[in-house]
Amino acid sequence: MKDLEKILAEIKGAYEQSKVKAKERLDNLAKPLGSLGQLENIAIKLSGITGRLDNPMKNRQLIVMSSDNGVVEEGVSCCPQNITVIQTINMLRGLTGVGVLAKHAGAKLKVVDIGINADVEYPGLYYRKIRKGTWNISKGPAMTREEAIKSIMTGIDMVEESVKEGAEVLGTGEMGIGNTSTSSAIVMAFTGSSADIVVGKGAGLTEEAYENKKRVIKQALEINKPDINDPVDVLTKVGGFDIGGMAGCFIGAAYYRIPILIDGLISAAAALLAYKLNPLVVDYMFSTHCSAEPGYKIVMDELGLKPMLNLDMRLGEGSGCAVSYDILDAANDIITKMATFEEATIFNDFLVDIR
Amino acid sequence: MKDLEKILAEIKGAYEQSKVKAKERLDNLAKPLGSLGQLENIAIKLSGITGRLDNPMKNRQLIVMSSDNGVVEEGVSCCPQNITVIQTINMLRGLTGVGVLAKHAGAKLKVVDIGINADVEYPGLYYRKIRKGTWNISKGPAMTREEAIKSIMTGIDMVEESVKEGAEVLGTGEMGIGNTSTSSAIVMAFTGSSADIVVGKGAGLTEEAYENKKRVIKQALEINKPDINDPVDVLTKVGGFDIGGMAGCFIGAAYYRIPILIDGLISAAAALLAYKLNPLVVDYMFSTHCSAEPGYKIVMDELGLKPMLNLDMRLGEGSGCAVSYDILDAANDIITKMATFEEATIFNDFLVDIR
Repeated sequence: MKDLEKILAEIKGAYEQSKVKAKERLDNLAKPLGSLGQLENIAIKLSGITGRLDNPMKNRQLIVMSSDNGVVEEGVSCCPQNITVIQTINMLRGLTGVGVLAKHAGAKLKVVDIGINADVEYPGLYYRKIRKGTWNISKGPAMTREEAIKSIMTGIDMVEESVKEGAEVLGTGEMGIGNTSTSSAIVMAFTGSSADIVVGKGAGLTEEAYENKKRVIKQALEINKPDINDPVDVLTKVGGFDIGGMAGCFIGAAYYRIPILIDGLISAAAALLAYKLNPLVVDYMFSTHCSAEPGYKIVMDELGLKPMLNLDMRLGEGSGCAVSYDILDAANDIITKMATFEEATIFNDFLVDIR
Repeated sequence: MKDLEKILAEIKGAYEQSKVKAKERLDNLAKPLGSLGQLENIAIKLSGITGRLDNPMKNRQLIVMSSDNGVVEEGVSCCPQNITVIQTINMLRGLTGVGVLAKHAGAKLKVVDIGINADVEYPGLYYRKIRKGTWNISKGPAMTREEAIKSIMTGIDMVEESVKEGAEVLGTGEMGIGNTSTSSAIVMAFTGSSADIVVGKGAGLTEEAYENKKRVIKQALEINKPDINDPVDVLTKVGGFDIGGMAGCFIGAAYYRIPILIDGLISAAAALLAYKLNPLVVDYMFSTHCSAEPGYKIVMDELGLKPMLNLDMRLGEGSGCAVSYDILDAANDIITKMATFEEATIFNDFLVDIR
């Protein structure tokens, strides 16, 4: 296993020259300048990641981090904790939202037990359990610093394996009852935003339970006092193994230069954590859908990313990523298959004016 | 050819009972209630259209209406008129935005010459020319009432053919220099909105040309005084053959009960025109992407529809539809392939609580 500090130090940003070349080609295509909007930006970003103009998005993978959170004993979720293990297995059975949508997209779904609070064995499950669930963040740290680093390294390792398998694009997902609370705590810590504007109702809390959830998260931040200049400390104090694992995926994607999709709030919190560890990782990230969870938009503003889809989804699991692979693939078809003005010309003198 | 009045009178709304059944199934799937947002609403709407729970979206078609607009002589576009015929041919060659994206989506592209101002022959082109371009709307009506009705009937006929070919979903697109002006005039007429909030810069106007475009459209409305209680009169006075043809597609889709996608501003103006002819057509329409043209959102608010994509596209041609077929298909996979709570149950007593 490589050293996290070393990996972070070796991450490089986008190939700026490749982005310039991609933009040049797009500007020469037979359409009004910039009229394909975000599709053009996606194609440019992909070129910056790989250094190539042609970036087929056929070999798709989606990495799901499953783990439990001690904070559920505070009643922050409407679901009992063992939904984590049940839905993890149902994912592998292809029955959950992401199970169905990943299959729809032709994406290989890799489900990782990074800290489920149960002994679980199921064909296809990756066994990377750090511990059976974190401690209760409203009473102290979620995990040790060593565990935090190990969770990040687990994500990096998963990406390394995917890259070796020829993956051309990665998605991120999670399953873990209570993880909108840990994610909200991370977003509040890094952005200084209040619980009222970050915290959402998760899978569907009553008003009373929602007030309790905000109180618990505020207490977690007050008791733990995470050091935001030390992102690993934030993960240690108020995070989760799933968030650490996903942050590792974002770091690994940047290290191995492969595009990676952000899903909903938990994935966004992990992306923010990775960004705080090295801001260059944002060159490799794509925001897929505007989650109905309120903290999501705050993170995207911080990262400077714009979601492609507007579907009011709030399921998590990686479901938004699964619906987005096709859009990246469409962006690649635009840059590789559309005609330039020259190629499209019938009467060249007129075509030049279309711009 | 059937009679337009008769077709309009025979349109029925969604099968409400099928929508109830679809919602019941979605509410029983192993996920928090409503957590797949618009994907769930799409699946419900599809059931209301066909009366079935399972609505595969594999046989995809995209109908493009190409025609010219006399108003271009007022300098409302930065493109010369013959771009219409050039890009129409390039579409058929698979080289334009929608040419590439329709192929990406596996959608059959049907390009219709409904009024191009040129003699054009090309393999695959549908010859349905009403006249070589409309008259200049800033000086009088765009067309005769008979031509307006004929353009609508052309769209209905195209849909009839698609349905006979087994199409399961339709997209709409257009090519016609000057058609953001006619579309804006239609949107302003029906909604009473001012030029300042409806009119956009089309393919890329200078500030001076933009002011001129607004002035020309206002003049078209003042001179023609379209009767908004008679939608065919609005089309006759300030519309275009492309808009009439697309409105016919929306009417035909409702008549033959097939889902149909709205693309950008011109497609939206046609959808609004169809809605004014019979409001039930909205039960068959899906908004695909939030066009960067300002009038688009005004129409969607009027129709009560919400775009799925947020890609800042403003190319037209049907390009937004082409990126959206996959989302409808994903919605259908959700309702047909996800497990219900009962199917997903390992420990039933816990799973019931997930809702």
